[in-house]
Amino acid sequence: MCHTVAVTEGIDHTLRDRWTPSGEATALPGHATRWLRARTGLDPADTPAAPASVLAVADSALSEPARAALAEVVGEPNVSTDRQARLGRAGGLSYLDLLRRRSGAELAVPDAVVLPNSPAEVQGVLEVCVEHDLAVVPFGGGTSVVGGVTALRGDKRAAVALDLAHLDQLVSVDPVSRIAVLQAGVRAPEAERLLAAHGFTLGHFPQSFERATIGGFAATRSAGQASSGYGRFEDMVEGIRMATPSGEWRLGAAPASAAGPDLRQLVVGSEGAFGVITEVTVRVRPVPTARRYEGFVLDGWERGVAAVRAMAQYRGLADVTRLSDVDETEVSLALSGGLRTAALRAYLRARRVRRPCLLILGWEVEDGRELAWKRMASLRVLREFDPVTLGRTAGESWRHKRFAGPRQRDALLDIGVCVETLETATHWSQIAALWSSVRGALVGSLTTENRCPVVMCHISHAYETGASLYFTAIVPRDPVDPVGQWQQAKAAACNAIAAHNTAWGGPTGTITHHHAVGTDHRPWLEGEIGAVGAEVLAAVKERLDPTGILNPGKLVPGCDQNGGRANST
Amino acid sequence: MCHTVAVTEGIDHTLRDRWTPSGEATALPGHATRWLRARTGLDPADTPAAPASVLAVADSALSEPARAALAEVVGEPNVSTDRQARLGRAGGLSYLDLLRRRSGAELAVPDAVVLPNSPAEVQGVLEVCVEHDLAVVPFGGGTSVVGGVTALRGDKRAAVALDLAHLDQLVSVDPVSRIAVLQAGVRAPEAERLLAAHGFTLGHFPQSFERATIGGFAATRSAGQASSGYGRFEDMVEGIRMATPSGEWRLGAAPASAAGPDLRQLVVGSEGAFGVITEVTVRVRPVPTARRYEGFVLDGWERGVAAVRAMAQYRGLADVTRLSDVDETEVSLALSGGLRTAALRAYLRARRVRRPCLLILGWEVEDGRELAWKRMASLRVLREFDPVTLGRTAGESWRHKRFAGPRQRDALLDIGVCVETLETATHWSQIAALWSSVRGALVGSLTTENRCPVVMCHISHAYETGASLYFTAIVPRDPVDPVGQWQQAKAAACNAIAAHNTAWGGPTGTITHHHAVGTDHRPWLEGEIGAVGAEVLAAVKERLDPTGILNPGKLVPGCDQNGGRANST
Repeated sequence: MCHTVAVTEGIDHTLRDRWTPSGEATALPGHATRWLRARTGLDPADTPAAPASVLAVADSALSEPARAALAEVVGEPNVSTDRQARLGRAGGLSYLDLLRRRSGAELAVPDAVVLPNSPAEVQGVLEVCVEHDLAVVPFGGGTSVVGGVTALRGDKRAAVALDLAHLDQLVSVDPVSRIAVLQAGVRAPEAERLLAAHGFTLGHFPQSFERATIGGFAATRSAGQASSGYGRFEDMVEGIRMATPSGEWRLGAAPASAAGPDLRQLVVGSEGAFGVITEVTVRVRPVPTARRYEGFVLDGWERGVAAVRAMAQYRGLADVTRLSDVDETEVSLALSGGLRTAALRAYLRARRVRRPCLLILGWEVEDGRELAWKRMASLRVLREFDPVTLGRTAGESWRHKRFAGPRQRDALLDIGVCVETLETATHWSQIAALWSSVRGALVGSLTTENRCPVVMCHISHAYETGASLYFTAIVPRDPVDPVGQWQQAKAAACNAIAAHNTAWGGPTGTITHHHAVGTDHRPWLEGEIGAVGAEVLAAVKERLDPTGILNPGKLVPGCDQNGGRANST
Repeated sequence: MCHTVAVTEGIDHTLRDRWTPSGEATALPGHATRWLRARTGLDPADTPAAPASVLAVADSALSEPARAALAEVVGEPNVSTDRQARLGRAGGLSYLDLLRRRSGAELAVPDAVVLPNSPAEVQGVLEVCVEHDLAVVPFGGGTSVVGGVTALRGDKRAAVALDLAHLDQLVSVDPVSRIAVLQAGVRAPEAERLLAAHGFTLGHFPQSFERATIGGFAATRSAGQASSGYGRFEDMVEGIRMATPSGEWRLGAAPASAAGPDLRQLVVGSEGAFGVITEVTVRVRPVPTARRYEGFVLDGWERGVAAVRAMAQYRGLADVTRLSDVDETEVSLALSGGLRTAALRAYLRARRVRRPCLLILGWEVEDGRELAWKRMASLRVLREFDPVTLGRTAGESWRHKRFAGPRQRDALLDIGVCVETLETATHWSQIAALWSSVRGALVGSLTTENRCPVVMCHISHAYETGASLYFTAIVPRDPVDPVGQWQQAKAAACNAIAAHNTAWGGPTGTITHHHAVGTDHRPWLEGEIGAVGAEVLAAVKERLDPTGILNPGKLVPGCDQNGGRANST
């Protein structure tokens, strides 16, 4: 396997064929592999990535005049047509992206990488791209799992990955108003470090935390694990600065306004199709000084859902609230293994828990007094649902592993497993039905004579009116058509979501709760926002990006052949 | 004065030259008039409205084929070109609207009133209006104070007031998800009555509560007095159904989504310029069983602002939080009069409060326990700012009078007073400066040799990052040019808001916190959302309303001569 980490002239050359760029071994423990074999029919095999050198990469289609014009804006060292630099921006980090990067098949590699050094340079790059007919694919942490950074060229002459890595500054902090301006390329851990120097935190901790950027969070309408406490990323956005082919756009005069539609919410989630976000003004909060995570077990998914709903509707949610269904709880126990798991199983049997569902509650607050109040509010509601208390060890154990998912995926990929996630959200009255139908679609699609999938689910984001459903599927990889295997399962799940209708015939489940549209959800977007909604997105796109250079083939539904509408390959 | 309340064939024929349609006398008490005379130089005079019969109303310009086509859709009794019916929809309820309706000058009277009976009929009306080149002015409660329902014709042949009074149904309630679907024409008190039958409340109580409608709340991005507890109206909107000339649009599949931009937030605040909202899916909450309102006095505006900020940033805001500045507190005391006021003044002197600022905190929650928690959270923060406790009487007194403002305005109008309000919002670090500059602009514009204005302000909506500032101006009316008197003051205030710049040159105050754009704020909108923002609104408008029939001259900035853009007279 090739895990080169090379930085040449300020450009990161990492190949990104796995989450852990340095290639740290995170091999699966023996008992976990044994469990997978027994449960899914997996025949563990060493399935490493192909070395980068064998990947087929077409020569760059960037013309010399275009390259020179870009270099004029950002400086020579910040334009690269180097093979390795281009490979490192060839898509995101979905299971299919990793498969493609491991095999080299269907890999959309940008023709160049450009690293502007300021919002003004981003604006300048867009002008060059309009002039030279180049597609622009904004690239932050590159963690999209929906094809959001796939280097599609559309009907343009070449595709440029616009890497925001050099926009890495904390521009300003207003401690009185508790707002801060961060450049789009600041990675989440760095944002936390920069803000902590002023006593603040953003409180946004999605699983992609270690790599993702502020601009990416805004562009994809991200939601973090502590969304119950800190809100979704869109709730944190006070203002936006965006470069567009029609000029620079700044929004955010006040914390709230009735001056027409909230256009910030049109920019948040625009996925690079309307412009390139260069700065985000975010709401910040004091670094928490009191923290507590606890584990509980509830008997049955229905009871667990009812408990989370009650806490949400009583406005007694913990900052982190995460309920696993029976399957996910079982997988957690199986993969943990060891004596503690055995003891836990015995304990649950003794408490006559038949269908254990793990519930993690976490509070991260300003002081001990607030912690006591908030915890009391949650537990007062929870008590009515007969929880079995696992204590702080279980809670802290989850907290320590909370960014580990992508690393586990690397290990599973290496031994021939197909592993991917998808999520939706719906109103509480629809949760049971949607959970059942999406689960059924995944199980149905992934089951064969020899392969028995594990499909598990959790609620990690709850609201007064509904919640998210986050599914993980694990199944032995189809050796013949691994891409098709997942594409079919994903389509089955998306169709199940789209088919979940109310009386009026519109969807009551969203095609994505926190992973954006990209290429992968685009076929289902119009079903959710309607033909009128698709027209509105197209109208905005056409006005801001009349020649269609911005992120072709992403977000905006429509005809692929129509360059003025939604350009894709 | 003419206070006819006449309903003919289901069409309300009230003239609306005052807030209180029935003409209930709410004359000002003697001590209040005396105080006004001493403080402002008012020479109280009887300045009644002209009788409706003398108002100049042009004949309806609606052609017979157009009338017949409308009647075909909604039924003959639901189309009216009657003079009184048209006069009743001639604008909103701003001070200038009332002045115009009292004098008949510059009165924009629609050519017809149409009352569709269903969302499908609204869609049908729009189709007729496109075909017959008619402007459509959606009309709910008619309480706009920014010209939002002024019957401008734009470049169309005639203007139709599309009155949503017959869309008055609660369509459905989902008690599990705590959402309800209400038709757009349901008035707020009726919405509360309908929801209460299911145990729910919307919790939206703006000062226009008694008249305003669900559709109007959504169309204008309304904020109620209990916004700290229940959120702004946009926070309550789960889904929207809107008729547009490009087809019907439905949004709202889930409580939260990352499926691209949140298009609901493009519809909320669209002010009838993109379509006619016919149904709104709202989040509801259980009817509160525990309620408590309390009054406090803080010494000085700066200290009061700091206290509200601390409560907001500690997330310890009461559901209703309202801080008056020194002038507003003084006016409250002066207008109340009586022994209790004298006792209060003595009490404050004894407590050495030099610059009293009244703070009202109100909690409306599910049960006594929640009340105790929330109150404790607020008071724990407040205690650090040395509040003088006035107790529940002061709080309850405010609660009982909380919708009385418009009635008091009627009484003031009748004795020759110019009285109007405006609001803005900004981040905490800018509150003092913006308060000072807007106040200065109003005082400067309204002061003459004989007239000394009272300009007062309160914060009624607070957020972690900032707050609203709501100004009221009271001054003897200019007998020669009463309209110009207020127009100049309003422009001075709006210019002060727009001039309030940050380092990057964008506004840090919004032109309106909860009263929408309408005609009156339109000249300042582009300064707030930028040229790019104005282009985006225009693009959406053109796509949804290609012939420009919808509410001409409202919201969308742009050239008045351009029919395809923003049509106005």
